[in-house]
Amino acid sequence: MSENIAVLGLGLMGTALAETLLAAGHRVTVWNRSSAKADALVAKGATRAATAAEAVAAAPLTIVCVLDYEAARAVLDGADLAGRTVLNLTNGRPAEARATGEWVNGRGGDYLDGGIMAVPYMIGRPGALILYSGPRDVFDRHEATLKPLAEPRHLGEDPGLAPLYDLALLTGMYGQIAGFLEAAALIAAEGRPVREFTETLLVPWLHAMASAQPRWAEDMERGDYATEVSNLEVNRVGLGNLVIAFEEQGVKPDLLLPMKEIVERRVARGHGAEGLPGLIEELR
Amino acid sequence: MSENIAVLGLGLMGTALAETLLAAGHRVTVWNRSSAKADALVAKGATRAATAAEAVAAAPLTIVCVLDYEAARAVLDGADLAGRTVLNLTNGRPAEARATGEWVNGRGGDYLDGGIMAVPYMIGRPGALILYSGPRDVFDRHEATLKPLAEPRHLGEDPGLAPLYDLALLTGMYGQIAGFLEAAALIAAEGRPVREFTETLLVPWLHAMASAQPRWAEDMERGDYATEVSNLEVNRVGLGNLVIAFEEQGVKPDLLLPMKEIVERRVARGHGAEGLPGLIEELR
Ligand SMILES: NC(=O)c1ccc[n+]([C@@H]2O[C@H](COP(=O)([O-])OP(=O)(O)OC[C@H]3O[C@@H](n4cnc5c(N)ncnc54)[C@H](OP(=O)(O)O)[C@@H]3O)[C@@H](O)[C@H]2O)c1
Ligand SMILES: NC(=O)c1ccc[n+]([C@@H]2O[C@H](COP(=O)([O-])OP(=O)(O)OC[C@H]3O[C@@H](n4cnc5c(N)ncnc54)[C@H](OP(=O)(O)O)[C@@H]3O)[C@@H](O)[C@H]2O)c1
Repeated sequence: MSENIAVLGLGLMGTALAETLLAAGHRVTVWNRSSAKADALVAKGATRAATAAEAVAAAPLTIVCVLDYEAARAVLDGADLAGRTVLNLTNGRPAEARATGEWVNGRGGDYLDGGIMAVPYMIGRPGALILYSGPRDVFDRHEATLKPLAEPRHLGEDPGLAPLYDLALLTGMYGQIAGFLEAAALIAAEGRPVREFTETLLVPWLHAMASAQPRWAEDMERGDYATEVSNLEVNRVGLGNLVIAFEEQGVKPDLLLPMKEIVERRVARGHGAEGLPGLIEELR
Repeated sequence: MSENIAVLGLGLMGTALAETLLAAGHRVTVWNRSSAKADALVAKGATRAATAAEAVAAAPLTIVCVLDYEAARAVLDGADLAGRTVLNLTNGRPAEARATGEWVNGRGGDYLDGGIMAVPYMIGRPGALILYSGPRDVFDRHEATLKPLAEPRHLGEDPGLAPLYDLALLTGMYGQIAGFLEAAALIAAEGRPVREFTETLLVPWLHAMASAQPRWAEDMERGDYATEVSNLEVNRVGLGNLVIAFEEQGVKPDLLLPMKEIVERRVARGHGAEGLPGLIEELR
């Protein structure tokens, strides 16, 4: 069962990946630009490669996890990729993943891209998720090897999909964070306890709201924005009121303003009787 | 146990409130500006009042639920409020609630304000929540009567608190919605199924992120923004990348831009090594 895997890039994340693969019983060959970062892993049983090319030559599967795609290409540049699989777990954009996939394929290698939905200490623990994209047969070949890292989820053949979904999840997260920051500022400005508000009111409320969003997604897929609950005109009035309240309470509503504007724009275009999911049309 | 309660305003919400109180075995006196909206409730056992003043006179507790605070005052204007309790469940701002409380007190009445965290069909069902604020003894006097409507939560004596918390929860919700809209637009622009993404990836991810936010709230209360996980400089780079990806994918990142700007501003002020909770300082 023990397979040899090369790990290039031993920052916080690369180190967590290499450690978890070692703990799962794999042979692991490691390389990092500044080689001292390999020492602890070598002490735990990893093999040190003198160059990235040597690491790639040692294993059928090479995981790259460095700062960005430019660094990933620089690292792989001198290596013979023919017959090898490169799994790039570096964060980036769909367009970069597609270009890097072509570049690896052009050198005779197979390419998988991945998006890690976890922080380093979560690697190998329940709750960690890695999104993968690239040829299905290549993913299938390595799935069992990769499983100890995190729950694997193959999204499709286009290597751009893993970064796309990764960015979409981060986008959802940043929206939630923005709402949380504004809500917390409103509570804090009144001298009220923010933690109690967050724990006993906001988080359960956000859980309930998020649970309704798959139904919104259905409306988006059907392009049917009829609503019986809360139309855009009601939301326009509500958001107007909200922004006045922020001013009265001495809190800046900056993070909410584009939401107010997009609702106003959609209502002005004659969609006041429709529901919030229809706002997606304004983002195209 | 049967108590008489007056309900002024029989729109969607007022009707749901009156129906639920009737179903709980209370005597309910109803009034609405356009009186036909009382008919169905009268058929179910409510007593129709010819004027708002007559309704207020009939019961120790009057619930008002109309379009806005201006309408609420107009409705109460002719009534003798001495010795009565007014519970205003109309949506508005903290400043309006405070002013209305003083106005009612000035006429010899007790005042409670409330924020309904539910849509009409949720009233009387598990999951519905009503936030209350105003004198504790007044709330205590009516709590048992109000309990059938929704889980009651008394926030404090200042009548502005119920609208404040209501607005803060809506704020959190709008942030989450904004993030969801942008994420869904990114997935949809690539022709991928939005519902599957939302249900199997985004919602579990948002649940996990929200569960971490009470700890962020603690950082805010302590004003201690040290982080070991994800500092503002890392987020600045990530958000820059995100916005480029939106452009490459042909999706407008409008709802995310102020989040990017606030992170850039905070980093420019020298807080790049701190965590995201410190962004609250930029909203004061
Ligand atoms: N940390 C997280 O929470 C997290 C979560 C999800 C995804 N990721 C992604 O994982 C990747 C690595 O993150 P990390 O947390 O491990 O970062 P890190 O601790 O800062 O490590 C960065 C790594 O990149 C290497 N590197 C940078 N520029 C290079 C170059 N030009 N040539 C060769 N190597 C270069 C560094 O080598 P030296 O040691 O020689 O500088 C180091 O190994 C990033 O794409 C990140 O977005 C991280
Ligand atoms: N629906 C919800 O999901 C929801 C959730 C939480 C909170 N709320 C709040 O509950 C309140 C009522 O909402 P709703 O859904 O019941 O609205 P609605 O169905 O539109 O009903 C509005 C009510 O206000 C009355 N009204 C408006 N202007 C008036 C005036 N100048 N004088 C006297 N009465 C006036 C209307 O009387 P007529 O019938 O004579 O027009 C009607 O009874 C609002 O503050 C709303 O924000 C609603």
